[in-house]
Amino acid sequence: MKKIQVIQFGLGPIGVESLKLAVEQSWLEVIGGVDIDPAKAGRTLADLTGVPALASARVFPSLDALFAAVGQPDVVLHTAGSSAAASFGQMKPALDRGVSVASTCEELIFPALKTPQLAAEYDALCRRTGARIAGTGVNPGFVMDILPICLTGVSREVKSIYVERVVNASTRRQPLQAKIGSGQNPDDFRAKFAAGKAGHAGFQQSVALVAHAMGWKLDEIRETCEPVVATSRVVTKFFDVAPGQSLGIHQKCYGLVGGETRIKLDLQMYLDAPLPHDAIVVRGRPDLNLVLNGGVAGDDATVAALINIVPRLLGAAPGVRLMTELAVPAWQSPGR
Amino acid sequence: MKKIQVIQFGLGPIGVESLKLAVEQSWLEVIGGVDIDPAKAGRTLADLTGVPALASARVFPSLDALFAAVGQPDVVLHTAGSSAAASFGQMKPALDRGVSVASTCEELIFPALKTPQLAAEYDALCRRTGARIAGTGVNPGFVMDILPICLTGVSREVKSIYVERVVNASTRRQPLQAKIGSGQNPDDFRAKFAAGKAGHAGFQQSVALVAHAMGWKLDEIRETCEPVVATSRVVTKFFDVAPGQSLGIHQKCYGLVGGETRIKLDLQMYLDAPLPHDAIVVRGRPDLNLVLNGGVAGDDATVAALINIVPRLLGAAPGVRLMTELAVPAWQSPGR
Repeated sequence: MKKIQVIQFGLGPIGVESLKLAVEQSWLEVIGGVDIDPAKAGRTLADLTGVPALASARVFPSLDALFAAVGQPDVVLHTAGSSAAASFGQMKPALDRGVSVASTCEELIFPALKTPQLAAEYDALCRRTGARIAGTGVNPGFVMDILPICLTGVSREVKSIYVERVVNASTRRQPLQAKIGSGQNPDDFRAKFAAGKAGHAGFQQSVALVAHAMGWKLDEIRETCEPVVATSRVVTKFFDVAPGQSLGIHQKCYGLVGGETRIKLDLQMYLDAPLPHDAIVVRGRPDLNLVLNGGVAGDDATVAALINIVPRLLGAAPGVRLMTELAVPAWQSPGR
Repeated sequence: MKKIQVIQFGLGPIGVESLKLAVEQSWLEVIGGVDIDPAKAGRTLADLTGVPALASARVFPSLDALFAAVGQPDVVLHTAGSSAAASFGQMKPALDRGVSVASTCEELIFPALKTPQLAAEYDALCRRTGARIAGTGVNPGFVMDILPICLTGVSREVKSIYVERVVNASTRRQPLQAKIGSGQNPDDFRAKFAAGKAGHAGFQQSVALVAHAMGWKLDEIRETCEPVVATSRVVTKFFDVAPGQSLGIHQKCYGLVGGETRIKLDLQMYLDAPLPHDAIVVRGRPDLNLVLNGGVAGDDATVAALINIVPRLLGAAPGVRLMTELAVPAWQSPGR
């Protein structure tokens, strides 16, 4: 069987993890990488990842430069930001050539929410060229949207969907602990969230995707985020948080129809959070009550979702695709 | 939007429930039914279901008779047995005409396991005519196969999959309580299971579907079934079971690769079973530990799975399709 050729766009920590997983797959061939950081251009992916097998794959400063040097891949693995508009723009050279894109961009989970015009334009572009682009991940992309949607496959009736996720951020990487405001003044964090500069990205997109799958036309998506404030000192590998400072976030997002809450997502992500778990409650017929004890580890799961989507993406019709339009998620065995 | 026209093949208790759910969907139109029972032919579906909206839909003794009288539907809802070979044969007149089939037939969850030659022949037939046929349901079809497979969509590595399901059969319908051997002599039940005449159908197909999705070539599928024996009297609406008689089944199925158990399914279905639940453990990276408290109610969920699959089936390529080849399961809103 011919290998699927991929390149990695974005060589930050998630991009490096994506490459490490991609190179283990006998059905994938990594032919290069792209990063806008001039310090990375020209280096090899072996150099950036520590994986000797990537010694012949180089980093280019742009997709065009990569295509000119090594030809077109089948798929771009895109891990370079949360904005759908920015991601569409970054991926245009690939989509123009009919090259498909799997992305961890949070807003691409449901790009019609914030950029409906752009989503329609890129959908038309993809249909012309034969490319597909889809966002995936663990959250958004799985725990709070695809998994509850999948669960309703055995529902005669669904009245409401509630999902809660409690993440112990002490076990996560430094950038995530920083992003949730660890050690910050709670009022500073509130101001940042109000300005759209803090909090968990893609939450509203998860609500929009669930509503879309359920056929619910939402009147409103409402989102709140409060800092979780330390009552005693908390120390991690990266932060030393005094009482009164922030440990992380308690973020909620509601999808309403006619004044009724049909969807509620509740995310607590903070240092030393006890009892990490994911839970889903579907009210309907039958009622369904799911718990993932310990939750789904974020970083491993994000790159897993990205690699696992590749064959399903290539099996889908060209266009801007939603995860709900692809075949059931599944682990892709390295030897498949 | 044009309604999807369906007919119901098999008018037993599950077929009647399927019709009751189908008639609530504004996107479906029920145009008739088929049953081989001469006492049902010629009656209306309203008469059989108690649903007045089905007054103009009649029961025919065969698909050919129905097609001649009311034309071809888009989809046949098939609830008439557990054998893939029998179901393929029953559905041939529909598939010959390019009419797709959604079925609760347990063996159709993975028809290549018991009837590989027939599955290949019908796949070729469907590709010629444009029809699709797929098996679905709650078990097999969801709890012990599709749900664990979906969960591995966020796995970097999967070493093994364990699923257990505990069902309190006291809450279920009489035929199910009878099927699991309630009130029988345990040795009689053992003899029946050994002869292939008792136990939960489709268990091996669930193992085969999970293995297929994981890319594991199994050396062996091993299945055992033991009666659960009453230690004190148990009374339900339908049975009065004395100590020493059977309350139901404890059935296990293993998928082995090189002597190692990669897949284990464990089903306890008996009268007065305490703590009904479904649980999934994926060993790998990350480890995943899922519990459905209370479990998924079987009868409601089975017909829900059948109706919910219809649009996804029509969106798939022609052929004998597996659930893993269709888009992520999801509830289909009646007003969609």
